[in-house]
Amino acid sequence: MTREQLFEQIQKKQSFLCLGLDTEMSRLPDHILDEEFPLFAFNRAVLDATHDLIIACKPNVAFYECLGTDGWKQFELTVNYIKHKYPDILIIADAKRGDIGNTSKKYAETFFRHLPCDAVTVAPYMGSDSVLPFLEYPDKWVVLLALTSNLGADDFQMTAMDNGERLFETVLRKSSGWGNPGNMMYVVGATRASMLKKVRELVPDHFLLIPGIGAQGGDLSEVAKYGLNNQCGLIVNSSRAIIYADSSARFALVAREKAREVQIEMAEILKSVR
Amino acid sequence: MTREQLFEQIQKKQSFLCLGLDTEMSRLPDHILDEEFPLFAFNRAVLDATHDLIIACKPNVAFYECLGTDGWKQFELTVNYIKHKYPDILIIADAKRGDIGNTSKKYAETFFRHLPCDAVTVAPYMGSDSVLPFLEYPDKWVVLLALTSNLGADDFQMTAMDNGERLFETVLRKSSGWGNPGNMMYVVGATRASMLKKVRELVPDHFLLIPGIGAQGGDLSEVAKYGLNNQCGLIVNSSRAIIYADSSARFALVAREKAREVQIEMAEILKSVR
Repeated sequence: MTREQLFEQIQKKQSFLCLGLDTEMSRLPDHILDEEFPLFAFNRAVLDATHDLIIACKPNVAFYECLGTDGWKQFELTVNYIKHKYPDILIIADAKRGDIGNTSKKYAETFFRHLPCDAVTVAPYMGSDSVLPFLEYPDKWVVLLALTSNLGADDFQMTAMDNGERLFETVLRKSSGWGNPGNMMYVVGATRASMLKKVRELVPDHFLLIPGIGAQGGDLSEVAKYGLNNQCGLIVNSSRAIIYADSSARFALVAREKAREVQIEMAEILKSVR
Repeated sequence: MTREQLFEQIQKKQSFLCLGLDTEMSRLPDHILDEEFPLFAFNRAVLDATHDLIIACKPNVAFYECLGTDGWKQFELTVNYIKHKYPDILIIADAKRGDIGNTSKKYAETFFRHLPCDAVTVAPYMGSDSVLPFLEYPDKWVVLLALTSNLGADDFQMTAMDNGERLFETVLRKSSGWGNPGNMMYVVGATRASMLKKVRELVPDHFLLIPGIGAQGGDLSEVAKYGLNNQCGLIVNSSRAIIYADSSARFALVAREKAREVQIEMAEILKSVR
């Protein structure tokens, strides 16, 4: 998916919401557990209920991988279902991969050739040759970790370099030369909305994937204030607050209501774009 | 596997060799391709030929994952085979995972509960809570990336912090407090043997996993000179130079010869330990 197609979807749906599919067996409604592929059945129901309100979806591979081949099968079923039924939705494999060049090439094959994902999250620690193999696929995206939303982000990402930058700033500055705003995005945690100003100085044009926002959208206006650019430039993820909002047979309906609340707020924010 | 058990194996086998199983369909001998599970059949043959010369083995998950569920099945078959047939061999899943706490917990379940791996490689960028869930499993290991052997290592790992350290030194110093030499190891690339002196100042007691050494063992004496401690403290990986040394029906025999050459050199080095 190109950057232009992504922005078109945002304008059409008046949304920049990403549905996080951190789907766990222990949190599924009882009636879903009887299905042959319960994670997939759950994902399908939530996607069918929310597809017109979201422009991206982000299954986190860890939640599938922990079930072994059976989990991988359901990850494959999920992304193939999205690609065929809702081709306008950007599929982000939240995998946080990254290895030496010839090995990253294999990971790129996994998500971009074997699977029909549009984007994959990548960890920056191993540097350029761990990222470049993912950029060889046209219309596919690397979503590079810059500043994450967890406590551990302070351990290294926020530490000061000898040139006055913090590590996440060095990552943004250096890596932005490896690709361009048409094939790279960055993860920037919503818990650091105030940092977005600094991020935008370094990467004004790139899309930012923002995790850590709940259905309440508490920080959404704050994120928009500092992060919005003239092509929106934001993809805001919500997972548990939407998919686990209700655990009864009505779960998909309630997921839609929660997604709709966020989308309405996003439509209001998008009025200021162009 | 405990640190004591690992050192016992090293003394018994007079080896600190790790067999890297970066197994690729395109590099398998022709006759193996007829097998139902060719990657597994290849791995099994190499393991049967080398098990008494190696103390660890390290399948890189990317090479299996790129084949989807079929590849994951063969990764599972491989690690289960090692665990049951050669329980004294440390199984390192080279996965380079790492995510926020509740997600790293899922990755730990994948490799330590669902699969019988003893260790998993983890990327440090997301900090302490991305690593700690792996340390909750007794007798299991985190192998944290410190200084890798690829060109991209210079991009961030070698950059200078404002306290005079380079990033990889900060990673070693901070992370060594998260666990102990009984449940954490570090990846340090063999192409940086001279850096091992600095590494040993920060983590004198931890095992180091050294990738990037060929069957020729060119740098082995250099690595030993700076990296050896009184419990050996080194696990040196070789993959392609052993497993792809020959592509005929004799591949396993030749793999053994190559592993044996390295093991002989290692036995000589181990004379200086205690």
